[in-house]
Amino acid sequence: MNPILNNFLKKLDAILISSRSNIIYLTTYPNFSETERECFLLITRSKQYLITDKRYSEAVTQVVKNFEIKDSGANKLLTAGRSSLLKNLRITNLGIEEYDLTVSEYSKLKKFVKTKSVDLRNLRIVKQKKEIENIQKACRLGDLAFEFIIKQLNPGVSEREIADKLETFINLKGADISFKPIIAFGKNSSIPHHMAGNSKLRKNQIVLLDFGVKVNNYCSDMSRTIFFGKAPNKFKKMYRTVLEAQTKAIEFIQSFYSSSERGESRSKLSISSNSQLFARDIDKIARNYIIKQGFSNMIHSLGHGVGIEVHEAPHISLKSKDKISSGMIFSIEPGIYIPGFGGVRIEDLVVVQDNKAQLISHSNREIIEL
Amino acid sequence: MNPILNNFLKKLDAILISSRSNIIYLTTYPNFSETERECFLLITRSKQYLITDKRYSEAVTQVVKNFEIKDSGANKLLTAGRSSLLKNLRITNLGIEEYDLTVSEYSKLKKFVKTKSVDLRNLRIVKQKKEIENIQKACRLGDLAFEFIIKQLNPGVSEREIADKLETFINLKGADISFKPIIAFGKNSSIPHHMAGNSKLRKNQIVLLDFGVKVNNYCSDMSRTIFFGKAPNKFKKMYRTVLEAQTKAIEFIQSFYSSSERGESRSKLSISSNSQLFARDIDKIARNYIIKQGFSNMIHSLGHGVGIEVHEAPHISLKSKDKISSGMIFSIEPGIYIPGFGGVRIEDLVVVQDNKAQLISHSNREIIEL
Repeated sequence: MNPILNNFLKKLDAILISSRSNIIYLTTYPNFSETERECFLLITRSKQYLITDKRYSEAVTQVVKNFEIKDSGANKLLTAGRSSLLKNLRITNLGIEEYDLTVSEYSKLKKFVKTKSVDLRNLRIVKQKKEIENIQKACRLGDLAFEFIIKQLNPGVSEREIADKLETFINLKGADISFKPIIAFGKNSSIPHHMAGNSKLRKNQIVLLDFGVKVNNYCSDMSRTIFFGKAPNKFKKMYRTVLEAQTKAIEFIQSFYSSSERGESRSKLSISSNSQLFARDIDKIARNYIIKQGFSNMIHSLGHGVGIEVHEAPHISLKSKDKISSGMIFSIEPGIYIPGFGGVRIEDLVVVQDNKAQLISHSNREIIEL
Repeated sequence: MNPILNNFLKKLDAILISSRSNIIYLTTYPNFSETERECFLLITRSKQYLITDKRYSEAVTQVVKNFEIKDSGANKLLTAGRSSLLKNLRITNLGIEEYDLTVSEYSKLKKFVKTKSVDLRNLRIVKQKKEIENIQKACRLGDLAFEFIIKQLNPGVSEREIADKLETFINLKGADISFKPIIAFGKNSSIPHHMAGNSKLRKNQIVLLDFGVKVNNYCSDMSRTIFFGKAPNKFKKMYRTVLEAQTKAIEFIQSFYSSSERGESRSKLSISSNSQLFARDIDKIARNYIIKQGFSNMIHSLGHGVGIEVHEAPHISLKSKDKISSGMIFSIEPGIYIPGFGGVRIEDLVVVQDNKAQLISHSNREIIEL
């Protein structure tokens, strides 16, 4: 039994797990819908149940061995009242994922059980060795995909064609994309979440590529910004600032670990106190550097954990309360965006392991002019 | 203003729209995350607001003209309390989508407004002409994709390779897939939602293909089951039963409309009374036929609406309360599944328009032996 769940179960009869990513984490079965409720896990001190319907039960039975499979339907669990599994198991105190369960589902449930919020958003924050290996594999494929895709940049090619080629390349390597690639040409690159469209590449445009690979349910995420032509000084200054902001943030993390290994005082290196590395302090390093160079405040957070979700804990943002520890993997992705001109973002993943922080994507980060 | 929303607003100060598909429907902007909360719409009697963050505001401003864009962040709307947009607009009675909003979000909101459930799951049930045209285009591409993909079925090809080729074909036509294609070889076909894997095609196997195309945000959905080799009688009986069940269900719908055009009494044609066509009666026709032929009860419902979501209202199931009317588009997809042997499913879309029910996918439905 997972120790985090075990701890919650000291005060509860059972936990109802509804979030798709936690279901994948605990069962390894990845095929439930992202938008419809097709599965719940019900975890008691003595037994674990997976509740789904007959469209899935045969497949799930083959894959998921440590859960008893119930195929009467996820919705039935909430509405069956006295005849439901919850009643049969005499569950009166039930932990629920309030950030995932809908108000409608909750209204049904509370008619026959008492619920208590159980926050499992950090359940996956510390990765095991096998999980880290999967993300490393995804990053290696990401590096190969980047090498491949920059050769496809020719005048007239559309953002969408580049996105499709990336996806096909990744599929042919036996992996999936972890999200629809963001491919932005020219001034489209000032939109951080631009959707690849019909814009065609012209000489002297910025090309921003942000994409990820999924291997065995685990995601990578990387961004590179290149210049298709001879880069003007305005772009070069943006690029150097973003790269330096990223480097400073990564070195800040690394210095925390190297100094802690040498037993040095960290007071001169770190804003954090109490020998802890706060995610928000990493964000500050990069953000303040960008502002100091005369650019506007960054319009998104510096980074995010990756894993089964492409965005998960820890959150590397000003408001984050997360502390960095061994087993965490997260992106460092500063960006500068100037509407009407374009944007620059550079994103790599960092893993903290064996008291060291290391980059796990290795694509060239120096300025590329094509 | 949409008449359904207008009607709700008679008794409310505003409606908070959170479901991604309704956001796409009302704004046409499709690029918000499926798994994270990145946008709300707030609709009052006099004005409409789109609340998102700075990663999206530039892109949204270009596309969405009938909403005032607020870029302070979706989460901020729920937590800002007295300084929030809701307070500024003096909203005290707020309609919410309880089937979409999470318990956590609701807890924040109810601290400063009164909420009332507003069910907008049927907001998109009746399609406009333009929407129908998009789905028709998606179906045409689906037919072309089917024609293409059956030529790729060769011994040794994997389910996953077929899924990738389908996706690439659809992408190269300028469209998207509407969901990850379900490609199942041999006995995998008895799992209705099988995920394409590494199984390789061998002679004398069932091949079940279930896939969809997305054009301008609108989905198609079709399934075909073919036999790779000379089909044994067991398969042929399953196939003929499924096809006949589908035909009977479609003819039932068509006869409802043709008789209503001729002003005939429908009592002899229809289980429904009051000149209404109930979705559940369509399900019964196909389901009962399959059972009568000696097969087990169908393990899923007969069909579902398609549109911005690949599964939406109307629901063609035994429990459905939906009534069919002009402007609806839905799948009719009976299936028979025998674990250890395989499954057969045939799925096409039906549109009801101008007092007629017509098929909008046209791929061969007769038995195919390759």
